[in-house]
Amino acid sequence: MDIRIQGARVILPGETPEERQRVEQTDIFIQGSRITGIGAAPDGFKAEKTIDGTDRLVIPGLINSHTHSYMAFMRNCADDLSFMDWLFGRIDPIEQKMKDEDAYWGACLAIIEMMKSGTTCFNDMQMNILQTTRAVRESGMRAVICRGLVGSGDDEAGRTRLEQAYQERDANRDCDRLTFRLGPHAPYTCDEAFLRIIAKEAEREQMGIHMHLSESRTEIENCQRDYGCSPIELAERAGLFAHPFIAAHCVQVNEADMDILARHHVSVVTNPASNMKLGNGFAPVPEMLERGINVCIGTDGAASNNSLNLFHEMSLAALIHKGTHTSPQCVGAEEVFRMATSAGARALGLDDQIGTIEVGKKADLAILDLKQPSLQPVNNLVAALSYSANGSEVDTVIIDGVVTMEHRRILTMDEERIYAENARIMERIG
Amino acid sequence: MDIRIQGARVILPGETPEERQRVEQTDIFIQGSRITGIGAAPDGFKAEKTIDGTDRLVIPGLINSHTHSYMAFMRNCADDLSFMDWLFGRIDPIEQKMKDEDAYWGACLAIIEMMKSGTTCFNDMQMNILQTTRAVRESGMRAVICRGLVGSGDDEAGRTRLEQAYQERDANRDCDRLTFRLGPHAPYTCDEAFLRIIAKEAEREQMGIHMHLSESRTEIENCQRDYGCSPIELAERAGLFAHPFIAAHCVQVNEADMDILARHHVSVVTNPASNMKLGNGFAPVPEMLERGINVCIGTDGAASNNSLNLFHEMSLAALIHKGTHTSPQCVGAEEVFRMATSAGARALGLDDQIGTIEVGKKADLAILDLKQPSLQPVNNLVAALSYSANGSEVDTVIIDGVVTMEHRRILTMDEERIYAENARIMERIG
Repeated sequence: MDIRIQGARVILPGETPEERQRVEQTDIFIQGSRITGIGAAPDGFKAEKTIDGTDRLVIPGLINSHTHSYMAFMRNCADDLSFMDWLFGRIDPIEQKMKDEDAYWGACLAIIEMMKSGTTCFNDMQMNILQTTRAVRESGMRAVICRGLVGSGDDEAGRTRLEQAYQERDANRDCDRLTFRLGPHAPYTCDEAFLRIIAKEAEREQMGIHMHLSESRTEIENCQRDYGCSPIELAERAGLFAHPFIAAHCVQVNEADMDILARHHVSVVTNPASNMKLGNGFAPVPEMLERGINVCIGTDGAASNNSLNLFHEMSLAALIHKGTHTSPQCVGAEEVFRMATSAGARALGLDDQIGTIEVGKKADLAILDLKQPSLQPVNNLVAALSYSANGSEVDTVIIDGVVTMEHRRILTMDEERIYAENARIMERIG
Repeated sequence: MDIRIQGARVILPGETPEERQRVEQTDIFIQGSRITGIGAAPDGFKAEKTIDGTDRLVIPGLINSHTHSYMAFMRNCADDLSFMDWLFGRIDPIEQKMKDEDAYWGACLAIIEMMKSGTTCFNDMQMNILQTTRAVRESGMRAVICRGLVGSGDDEAGRTRLEQAYQERDANRDCDRLTFRLGPHAPYTCDEAFLRIIAKEAEREQMGIHMHLSESRTEIENCQRDYGCSPIELAERAGLFAHPFIAAHCVQVNEADMDILARHHVSVVTNPASNMKLGNGFAPVPEMLERGINVCIGTDGAASNNSLNLFHEMSLAALIHKGTHTSPQCVGAEEVFRMATSAGARALGLDDQIGTIEVGKKADLAILDLKQPSLQPVNNLVAALSYSANGSEVDTVIIDGVVTMEHRRILTMDEERIYAENARIMERIG
């Protein structure tokens, strides 16, 4: 469908390296799945739908670079507990009782929450891939998916899981909103031999990798005990960093670790709410940015956040490092906006497709209603996204050129049904 | 008007000291300005309005225990700057150009944002009292107001400002939603002799005190240089703590300071967003709570937050201390809920009137729509308020028994006009 967004304020990429973003009042033209014009209509454009941009701000759809979508029904079911009580007392027992289809309903709920807060693409790790891809396909979302792989080098099960991951990928080759990565779960669930196998598979299949790395102190201590090195060093020596690599968390990293991450162009996903909530601390985001590491941002799963609202995460990223560094100039709103958009796209290997509003890119857009008290008066709109918006200002969402939410109503999914099913799941297994 | 809220989930005070809150599905009956029944209707109750509580959660209206409401139009106009550039480069020049009526429009905008995020009472410090009280009176809000006082002991101007503060208080004696405090601004704007005068005035007028204390390192260093003691010690020796006292910030406090605060039953307002954003750090909230200090929560002004949404502040309070203490059990959601409700009421000396949902208290209530993805499925609702809600779930607000917002429409104020006036102010002086 040809869509015209008329006279809205738009956050466009900066025109110089120093200017990260600029806000302009202009028109956006969409044809098929792509942006085909900004300012002037492209030849042959015939608006089938016009969106009035008065008092509206158009931003690139946000990218949630690390989550576990199926866990959405676990929000607010296990809080203020020690890590062991959280995991073994609450989360694991629920996971054990899960039926396959529960993951579908969980992913649907996650997608509703993400869409309503302006997220148009998420990077997911989990075990019920075909349930999640079903939710992604139906909802119109964009996602990068990996099966969480655990295994040891001589473990036949590890090979079987890889085969399964390839089948799941191949079953979705027809949907270009879905891409796939290899997902070795973590250094404490995959041994070094298995990580080496993953590295070889990544080479053979030409796939990127998504892995939890250096999240907690315990992980570091155990890795030192078992391998005599840090998780980052382990991943490097297993050959994983030779491939496009997304490292989730990187809270407990030292200078040497950060140098390795920078050298191999590893993308790091910071998950500030989850890292604080589980008592892991603060990732050294300013230090990673200084080294030129591509830092993007994620919510982690709803069992440890408990929200999938990237506006909340942006606000945390823009505030907490100012607190830890006692510096009001540490990690600014422009940087955080980049983390939630173009840096996420780059991490996912989709920077030629999404992450900025440019002609030729996919039309993945969130349109905010500026007539909300949190955004009034209209001063610096990039600052507003991190410091005063809460995500509920998102009025309309377009993904792959399709309007998936309009005036806060999800057009692609049955919200009531999804709420009811998720309630039933927690009644049964919560 | 007799109002019945029918069959909603309600957060009620716990029945034992260990149980901080409990959630019950019940009816609430309101007559005049007060709650007159919970569960069973009081004699003679005739519902003139019934609010359907299906899929609704009723909480005590939140209390924003420290703000500067008039600054609302300054949101997102001065971010990621050094403190000096922020204050002298941006905020001060705007303040210098302010007309008296600007403070009215700023306060109106602040009240809209607060009401829409469930705040029903705020504790305000500023200079344009009659403009703010006008906004409070018209909007139906509840507020505690103090004129920010600066002065030195032998300064006639200080005396004049006090007289003015009394006149402003006396001009509002007819509105019982308004109470007044004395507001010595800070240790760096009031000298010790003036603070002693304030202490005497508090005794004579039987008024509580609201003051900024121990916000930044510079304040501590200057106080040590000028008085050889900490700001907390200075306030103690000036006699201020002999009166009901609200200390905003208390970020840079040591053990001795906290012992003083505890001994004198000083209430502390933590402002996590503002303290991080200005690079002041994290208040030692867990340590203050351990000492039994009454810690409540505030947003500070919109020039340093940039939101007046207490849900955001609750989420920060429940997360950041887990990060600084690397403990997932540090400052839990139940404690944070108390900070934003009953602890705030106690700080303001209004705990016999507001802060909990109980028969005989004022009907100051926020009603949340649970059919929002952030609150689905309904698991622990107290955890949900801190960890997954963003404030936009507030559907209806009742203050002093009057419905001031219904289905997110403010009934007492003209939102469009207020947005337009605030935009004009920033065009003129921003």
